[in-house]
Amino acid sequence: MANEKRYAQANNESLHRIFTIPEAPDSTLSQIESEISKNLNGFLSHHIVATDKPLSEIEQDFASSELPERPEYVSDHTRQLLEKLIAQSVHTSAPSFIGHMTSALPYFLLPLSKLMVGLNQNLVKIETSKAFTPMERQVLGMMHRLVYANNDDFYQDWMHSADSSLGAFCSGGTVANITALWVARNSLLVAKPGFKGVSEEGLFKGLKAYGYDDLAILVSERGHYSLKKAANLLGLGHDSIIAIPTDAEHRMDCKLLREKCAELEAKNIKVMAIVGIAGTTETGTLDPLNDMADIAAEYNAHFHVDAAWGGATLFSNKYRYLLSGIERADSVTIDAHKQMYVPMGAGLVLFKNPEAVAAIEHHAEYILRKGSKDLGSHTLEGSRPGMAMLLYASLHIISRPGFELLINQSIEKAKYFASLITAHEDFQLVSEPKLCLLTYRYVPKHVQELLQSCTLQQRRNINELLDQLTITMQKLQREAGKSFVSRTRIPEQGQGTDAISVFRVVLANPLTTEDILQQVLVEQEAIATEQTPLLAQLQSIIDA
Amino acid sequence: MANEKRYAQANNESLHRIFTIPEAPDSTLSQIESEISKNLNGFLSHHIVATDKPLSEIEQDFASSELPERPEYVSDHTRQLLEKLIAQSVHTSAPSFIGHMTSALPYFLLPLSKLMVGLNQNLVKIETSKAFTPMERQVLGMMHRLVYANNDDFYQDWMHSADSSLGAFCSGGTVANITALWVARNSLLVAKPGFKGVSEEGLFKGLKAYGYDDLAILVSERGHYSLKKAANLLGLGHDSIIAIPTDAEHRMDCKLLREKCAELEAKNIKVMAIVGIAGTTETGTLDPLNDMADIAAEYNAHFHVDAAWGGATLFSNKYRYLLSGIERADSVTIDAHKQMYVPMGAGLVLFKNPEAVAAIEHHAEYILRKGSKDLGSHTLEGSRPGMAMLLYASLHIISRPGFELLINQSIEKAKYFASLITAHEDFQLVSEPKLCLLTYRYVPKHVQELLQSCTLQQRRNINELLDQLTITMQKLQREAGKSFVSRTRIPEQGQGTDAISVFRVVLANPLTTEDILQQVLVEQEAIATEQTPLLAQLQSIIDA
Repeated sequence: MANEKRYAQANNESLHRIFTIPEAPDSTLSQIESEISKNLNGFLSHHIVATDKPLSEIEQDFASSELPERPEYVSDHTRQLLEKLIAQSVHTSAPSFIGHMTSALPYFLLPLSKLMVGLNQNLVKIETSKAFTPMERQVLGMMHRLVYANNDDFYQDWMHSADSSLGAFCSGGTVANITALWVARNSLLVAKPGFKGVSEEGLFKGLKAYGYDDLAILVSERGHYSLKKAANLLGLGHDSIIAIPTDAEHRMDCKLLREKCAELEAKNIKVMAIVGIAGTTETGTLDPLNDMADIAAEYNAHFHVDAAWGGATLFSNKYRYLLSGIERADSVTIDAHKQMYVPMGAGLVLFKNPEAVAAIEHHAEYILRKGSKDLGSHTLEGSRPGMAMLLYASLHIISRPGFELLINQSIEKAKYFASLITAHEDFQLVSEPKLCLLTYRYVPKHVQELLQSCTLQQRRNINELLDQLTITMQKLQREAGKSFVSRTRIPEQGQGTDAISVFRVVLANPLTTEDILQQVLVEQEAIATEQTPLLAQLQSIIDA
Repeated sequence: MANEKRYAQANNESLHRIFTIPEAPDSTLSQIESEISKNLNGFLSHHIVATDKPLSEIEQDFASSELPERPEYVSDHTRQLLEKLIAQSVHTSAPSFIGHMTSALPYFLLPLSKLMVGLNQNLVKIETSKAFTPMERQVLGMMHRLVYANNDDFYQDWMHSADSSLGAFCSGGTVANITALWVARNSLLVAKPGFKGVSEEGLFKGLKAYGYDDLAILVSERGHYSLKKAANLLGLGHDSIIAIPTDAEHRMDCKLLREKCAELEAKNIKVMAIVGIAGTTETGTLDPLNDMADIAAEYNAHFHVDAAWGGATLFSNKYRYLLSGIERADSVTIDAHKQMYVPMGAGLVLFKNPEAVAAIEHHAEYILRKGSKDLGSHTLEGSRPGMAMLLYASLHIISRPGFELLINQSIEKAKYFASLITAHEDFQLVSEPKLCLLTYRYVPKHVQELLQSCTLQQRRNINELLDQLTITMQKLQREAGKSFVSRTRIPEQGQGTDAISVFRVVLANPLTTEDILQQVLVEQEAIATEQTPLLAQLQSIIDA
């Protein structure tokens, strides 16, 4: 017992130290920090093991479920983090890691992130965020203006208005999409005589009150899976997501969209929302937003644009025409942690009508009192960190023309890579880059020729082998650890055709050079030529 | 045009520098970083202006909605951040800021946060997080074990299991509560012959398929507002939240709970979930979880425990009995950014049954393929940062006994503060601390005496004046900037009584000393005695 007491006291003192005594400058953790500050890429390249270790082996280092009963020294634990966690993490900012939507980050965001953590503001209410609230409202205002381009008076009236907000900052595009469709649902099934609104009485009574047999959300078949998740969460069910086929360029087919709207209406199913994608995750394709806005207006449906990826293209005076029509959207999702180069955890949803968020407003006694300017009254999340500061800083330090340069460079890099693929006789470009995404696959020249003229059955047999080849190549390339492309499955030539496996690349990292892109193809070609059994099978089809 | 080109090129180079050249050690930003590393509290005390500036004035610094067209130098912008944003932010970690659930943070989390940002992992899938995925799964396993205490075999089987997870890491308690109720709803209206399940067909058809007239979620009237938000989002509506009155100690009245369950059942309204609060936000009260678990079992309802605040009490062998019954919950919410001292943005939901998350499972082609161990298949959010690393490090560096000490100290500090309030003749303790939260108000001795014996009408008149006094005092204290308590409204003596305004304090900051608590009362007393008109009005009631 005496022992226990002494132990407790010793722990007590060391605990107090943790909160009061900074890390010594020569500690392991301070050294790491200094390394990161001086050369982040060097640190990551040095500490992250390039070659692939099977997940099952990594899991052995994270196998115990027991809570640690003895404290570890910070330095000891840091070494363990380096060896077990960091070493086996993913170098997402490597210029040759072009498979996902990750990138190198601007250096200034590292110290600013630390400042943000040290300030530990909570944006749910003014009492724990003060100036961070108007700052976030300004960021929402700027981003709103980027999309909707209203005049000064509009922003003067609304940006800092109590009981309203021009949108919501959130952890990412999924929460942004959910918030947009939540607003759409609640605005549709709004209170009326005899019905207090869906927010009060729920969906079951809401559909009965309005006499609809069901609600529908129409989106192209290339829409993000978060929309299905939103439909599930909102109580509409996956079935309410109606996937409209795309044309050969993976864009929503508006003729089919209009037909489907008419068909649903005839069945007494209300078109709650039409969702345009401005930058699909798989191919970077942009839906014909203006045509969709017309149809949404015709059917009095909420028009949402998921521009989580492509929204930042609006910074580019050269390419913003690609998103023409987005200004007609009732709501828009944009991720700051994608093409705005903010670290993970920063998404936004913006609403054309600044009073739209009233549909999801909520209050509580101890916070979010009515009439307050607390941002928490209109967000899906509650407590939230001050991530908006990072976007605020980026908007000022990089500025609109800086973002334009970054966007233009990315698109032009994708076009360059597309030209490399097209020029190579054994690669096939599957989707052309509109933004900085493209898909392709390895198809030996003779197979490409055969695909031009073969029967449907032959085509299927060939594609099956090519799929295997793509999957194998992608895996081997990843495991070798020099570069990384991702893969997905998309229809071969749009509407109605079979899906095929393809390599998918995203060229948003400003540090990815043309040389790296050349090397990616060289490496893939080398991997491909080693796949003798598969190549032999392909050859036998050609020979047959 | 030539000018524009030169400008673009210059920008191009400076942009590239932002991604490649670290901040110089003598730059403004590096200096700030160094100050934070050496003395965070000193930095915050030095830079945050203590006295209150009206929000309308602060807003003038964040008034423009125009996107910056000229880049700012990092150093210039940093100075602006210091002067306009940081200076007017809230010193949430100040030991005298005891009004909300914020605290000082352990020092080691600052450099680790920077490391986390630099690594920029995305936990949605293994391809962008690798070892971070098993690490997060281990953290979920440890926290699951803290609540449910299953044996090694259980965790061996489930912790790293594909297509399952023991819970979900998320941005905070609100998302955790929503996720729990989402699972509850989908598990209730599950697929059966003729119905594909609510996740597919939605709530309207789900209620029809099961023949319920409505669903209900029962929670004490002291439940967190996020539950209403969840009911709204999930399509159930606020009306589905049935608030059960509490006893004099603000705990769910289980007799009334049982009666309400019977009443709802008789009306063909299915009790979907019963929610116990383990640490209410306003008073820190803990519901009688065991009794509630009995009733939930009886009515076959999902039993959720919102332990966002109090969950960390489980680390304390001395006090964990307060949460007895939590191990019977189907799901539990715990916030790591509250009593686990992790920076803002870290919540968890845990599920007793590891297969529960199947109810909200989703897949997509390019990620989250079936059979993968991607955590994104079972989370409300999509892309997510590697916050789990901070909890992982804290669990190892602070360890279970360290957390126990922190929890015990907080509770004992609250008891000490309660004793100060009770000993002071002009203060009235309104809710006793069970955890480290309590509420109180300033009530001059003679008024306290009168309240013992007065008529209901007199009582109401007095309370109205006392409410004004409390609100004024809280505002003046906040504006003076020396210390901060929050305020809320709660029933005077539990069930059925009128609500009164009270001061609310949360004593989770390990750096809050007894001396500070004494000073808080001294300061409040001084403010109170200056409120002559209100005091005179109170006196006139006594005199009458």
